[in-house]
Amino acid sequence: MAVKSKAVIFKKVPTDYPVPGEHLETIETDKDVNNIALGPDEVLLKVLFISLDPYLRGKMRAETTQSYNLSFVIGEPFYSHAIGEVVKSNHAEFKVGDKVVGILTWETYSVLKGPALKTAIIVPDIEGIPLSNWIGVLGMPGMTAFVGLHKIGNPKAGETIFISAASGAVGQLAGQLAKILGLRVVGSAGDDAKVQYLINELKFDAFNYKTTDTNEALTKFCPQGIDIYFENVGGKTLDIVLNHANNFARFIACGMISQYNTQHPEGVHNLMYIVRKRIRFEGFIVSDDWLLYWPRFVKEIPELIKNGQIKYKEDITEGLEKAPEAFVGLLRGKNFGKAIVKV
Amino acid sequence: MAVKSKAVIFKKVPTDYPVPGEHLETIETDKDVNNIALGPDEVLLKVLFISLDPYLRGKMRAETTQSYNLSFVIGEPFYSHAIGEVVKSNHAEFKVGDKVVGILTWETYSVLKGPALKTAIIVPDIEGIPLSNWIGVLGMPGMTAFVGLHKIGNPKAGETIFISAASGAVGQLAGQLAKILGLRVVGSAGDDAKVQYLINELKFDAFNYKTTDTNEALTKFCPQGIDIYFENVGGKTLDIVLNHANNFARFIACGMISQYNTQHPEGVHNLMYIVRKRIRFEGFIVSDDWLLYWPRFVKEIPELIKNGQIKYKEDITEGLEKAPEAFVGLLRGKNFGKAIVKV
Repeated sequence: MAVKSKAVIFKKVPTDYPVPGEHLETIETDKDVNNIALGPDEVLLKVLFISLDPYLRGKMRAETTQSYNLSFVIGEPFYSHAIGEVVKSNHAEFKVGDKVVGILTWETYSVLKGPALKTAIIVPDIEGIPLSNWIGVLGMPGMTAFVGLHKIGNPKAGETIFISAASGAVGQLAGQLAKILGLRVVGSAGDDAKVQYLINELKFDAFNYKTTDTNEALTKFCPQGIDIYFENVGGKTLDIVLNHANNFARFIACGMISQYNTQHPEGVHNLMYIVRKRIRFEGFIVSDDWLLYWPRFVKEIPELIKNGQIKYKEDITEGLEKAPEAFVGLLRGKNFGKAIVKV
Repeated sequence: MAVKSKAVIFKKVPTDYPVPGEHLETIETDKDVNNIALGPDEVLLKVLFISLDPYLRGKMRAETTQSYNLSFVIGEPFYSHAIGEVVKSNHAEFKVGDKVVGILTWETYSVLKGPALKTAIIVPDIEGIPLSNWIGVLGMPGMTAFVGLHKIGNPKAGETIFISAASGAVGQLAGQLAKILGLRVVGSAGDDAKVQYLINELKFDAFNYKTTDTNEALTKFCPQGIDIYFENVGGKTLDIVLNHANNFARFIACGMISQYNTQHPEGVHNLMYIVRKRIRFEGFIVSDDWLLYWPRFVKEIPELIKNGQIKYKEDITEGLEKAPEAFVGLLRGKNFGKAIVKV
């Protein structure tokens, strides 16, 4: 009996927020999952969990703008970090039944092949770690928090770090790591439930940037100024943080989600503070430094999760057909915690 | 016979470009230069050359805005790096006839005292170096070029550096140093004579940003993108450079003169490139690193000047009474080379 694989397809380049159905859509493909031909070294995976990440919005473009990553191809599936179980394998390292984390297409069944084979790994078998963590706190977002904080942040006990989108996939871990290192941690988020989570569960100082004036909140929560800014949002918030930054502050340029869904990014006006305050504002892409930081990361973080020092909230949507909506929800800040689709 | 000292006085905080007479003015003071009382360790100098620097605009403010330097005081003289000759001294290190470079008030006769004593030095006696060079290519602007390029720029042969305000006090030296190190050097300036100087004398690629589209010029002159941006102007130029920057580019945040004379700095929109391209955008203040770089600087640069490898254009205005006009001219880009007043 034929079992058709489903896929989330890139349909059209959006200029504003993407619309499910118009710009991306879950369809039933022609592929019969019982009859997928594998080339040499290729591996067929039943996809279990898919990571929804803000940077994917940048791949929904026409192939004209240069960027650090390739664009999605119209008519072809989305792809991102995901976890699958091997159901068929021509590769010596991957055996049927193995759980694998790597870059996979957004399909119910995905073929691991080409360059994606090189970065895919078998999920380490560590007791007490939920499988989905390997695309969240122990995956790319977790590594992003870890690399950004250590490579650019240069955190020192007693300093103040401000984290925008602090309840998000990256912000949660960045803040908790900073707290363990003895920093004062202040976070912002876009609704009261997230703010309560940051305050009550993660023990950050936190505020709702939609209902509180950011300038007043930073004045209150950062009485000694801001030494490190974990920049996830850009725009107005960045302008205000420049105003509150201390001399020699480090700005970890991780993302600017407030600016992704517009043709006309907001202007930032206070850049002269970069000179006056000798700020270092530095971008990074986690894949550049992955190999360097991974051994330390995988040694430290699972342990912190198991002993309860690191908590991590996931927002899991069930069903591949809901992935387009969940992805757009992420771009609009509707997710609460790391956005994941359980296929 | 009484000889009255003249002084350039800060009269009023400007909101836009300062106006000579309204915001700063040269006046005759009550001080009789033959009867100036000196305290212990104080030194009376006949002022010879005064350095006009863009950053001084930032000191023409009410004492409310934090910055890396104090504001000028209403009713009191301007001060900046300057060269004077000792005419009276209570200090063992400074003897009558010595030429001294340090922070001096803009007066015909200035008393060196307090903290300024600690950073003042007797001008090194090096043959073939014009005295005025010690507030230009061999002074604060020269050190700014040197420290910015080495500390933040991390220049490598074969790379491309773009320098805005390239014929200015800092830009001239930064570009020539980069050229000696084997970089492709591209500069912009605001009139054709400056551009011709950059092309013919300094051998940069150069364009007039007022008559040429900056985006087109950078496309033409930086075919391999921009690895280092020596940022002196801010605003629109910065936005365009972000667009032309290579991965891992370094932006030396030295100044943003296009934004100093307005209450409403222009918005910069392309900051997302800092993430995508892993740009490091870093500010610095030369005084922080002065002691570290000075020995190397003073060993290397005078030699390069004497053997003709470094040229340096100065724009010398004669007479302290012309200083207000010359300073405002600097802010408007009317100077051609390092702006100096010969007192």
